[in-house]
Amino acid sequence: MVDIPTYADVLAARERIAGYVHRTPVHSSSTLNAVTQAQVFLKCENLQRVGAFKARGACNAVFALDDEQITKGVATHSSGNHGAALALAAMIRNVPAHVVMPSNSSDVKRSAVRHYQAKVVNCDPGMRNREEALARVIQETGAHMVHPYDDSLVIAGQGTAALELMDDVGGLDVILVPVGGGGLIGGTLLAAEGYGKGTRVIGVEPRQADDARQSFRRGARVIIDSPDTIADGLRASLGERNFELIHRHADDIICVEESEIIAAMRFVWERMKLVIEPSAAVPIAALLHRRLELPGKRIGLIISGGNVDLDHLPW
Amino acid sequence: MVDIPTYADVLAARERIAGYVHRTPVHSSSTLNAVTQAQVFLKCENLQRVGAFKARGACNAVFALDDEQITKGVATHSSGNHGAALALAAMIRNVPAHVVMPSNSSDVKRSAVRHYQAKVVNCDPGMRNREEALARVIQETGAHMVHPYDDSLVIAGQGTAALELMDDVGGLDVILVPVGGGGLIGGTLLAAEGYGKGTRVIGVEPRQADDARQSFRRGARVIIDSPDTIADGLRASLGERNFELIHRHADDIICVEESEIIAAMRFVWERMKLVIEPSAAVPIAALLHRRLELPGKRIGLIISGGNVDLDHLPW
Repeated sequence: MVDIPTYADVLAARERIAGYVHRTPVHSSSTLNAVTQAQVFLKCENLQRVGAFKARGACNAVFALDDEQITKGVATHSSGNHGAALALAAMIRNVPAHVVMPSNSSDVKRSAVRHYQAKVVNCDPGMRNREEALARVIQETGAHMVHPYDDSLVIAGQGTAALELMDDVGGLDVILVPVGGGGLIGGTLLAAEGYGKGTRVIGVEPRQADDARQSFRRGARVIIDSPDTIADGLRASLGERNFELIHRHADDIICVEESEIIAAMRFVWERMKLVIEPSAAVPIAALLHRRLELPGKRIGLIISGGNVDLDHLPW
Repeated sequence: MVDIPTYADVLAARERIAGYVHRTPVHSSSTLNAVTQAQVFLKCENLQRVGAFKARGACNAVFALDDEQITKGVATHSSGNHGAALALAAMIRNVPAHVVMPSNSSDVKRSAVRHYQAKVVNCDPGMRNREEALARVIQETGAHMVHPYDDSLVIAGQGTAALELMDDVGGLDVILVPVGGGGLIGGTLLAAEGYGKGTRVIGVEPRQADDARQSFRRGARVIIDSPDTIADGLRASLGERNFELIHRHADDIICVEESEIIAAMRFVWERMKLVIEPSAAVPIAALLHRRLELPGKRIGLIISGGNVDLDHLPW
């Protein structure tokens, strides 16, 4: 049986990471409110350090380790934001970070990781290659592994975004979050449950990477290998702890189409003047394209990140 | 002799428009601070209503008119943000707005004006055609003309952005603003002067549209017809009142190159996750490309707007 984090872990994470991450602002849009006939509050983690909520979980994991555990640094595999986040956290704590990246990672992501002084270790694409390369790095360096999402400290750290959102805007009927490996929704579920105001949490996935919806419906973890979606942050399948939290606490998991993700992303750029990545657009797509209707409700959304390659936009 | 607005007009504008415009946030970037060796505060008017500071001046002008003056509505010519701003202000006050737009205006701008229920009147491109078309509209409708920048109420309204910025961040050594027709810098000069903390104001222009720099140096208004710059909000030459304010109060006017504007725009999108238009990138370009060096200083920037055509990006 794996350890499952609790609300107390989210509260502890908030204290632990307060000096290292931004308290991000909450934005709203009168157009979005009009279209949805609701009040929608966007927690802007695209404005977080490293451009994504991942800074929260990584800082929580790195600063929760004692000096002995962390003396040889930290390691992970990541094609995206978690690698940069772990690199940042390690740089702040002044320990080495090793990030295994598949050879098809974008140059933008690669240089972000290097910018935070981490050592990039290349590997062939594919989850097995990544895991093998990471095992070798840990073997050789003695670094402590920090998993991108199936890690209690990481999950607890991600939950701090929802805590701040609820503190800032007061009662919410529902919070919508994108679902990839399940770190963000796991932490958000703990935060909403512990907060005690009856806020429901609904996960939103690309239909082309709907392992979480399938898992939620069947009550058992479904893995989808290499799904094809523009929402590059949501291609991972749920981790063990992440599935457990969704299974216990989630209200629902719903899906959106690729074209809806792109339209929602463009809406936010054009109307709200915020650069968000496709993954972050997924819950907005659910609202704009009426995948769920919540008239009169107070709806929180976690805008997960804003890291995009401006030379390859989807329109 | 034309009427020149004063600091009292800016304070009055703040009261008058408070319920109609957003109090926009101030963002900062550790990278920008590191590059400039200064503390830089960005007043985000891209997050203002209609996506630009122009909402301030337009609302001030529309709400300063008495019922009799405004009963037949308002009119202007604009290829850009002022048209949408005036349309919004008129919609709020529930009077008609007529916006003369040259036939080469972008569809995005045109539909923004229509979105706020204004009547769009088409004309051929060129300032003379625009002015003639506007004169006809005013003749036919009896609407009150609100000039985009050479208008005391408009100038006073634009100055409220700098007031808020100084209130929010405390003392500033200098404020940098983009210069087109001079509405924003005019109001900013009044605000900084009246605030009484010795804040200097420096205008920044595209070198390819440097009428304000030339005018400032010569002490006489220089007009440049149809300058070619990507900063479409800065193609206008200074108005009469605007020149007068710059002549009296500006510290300096400096210039940046087109490539620097594009690079600065991209920097803000990529690193700060904010959608800004080329005109708004002009003062950032001056800092990033060392057109002026202000180490150790506290620098305010007015980010003028965020209206761009996402189908035609300059990279």
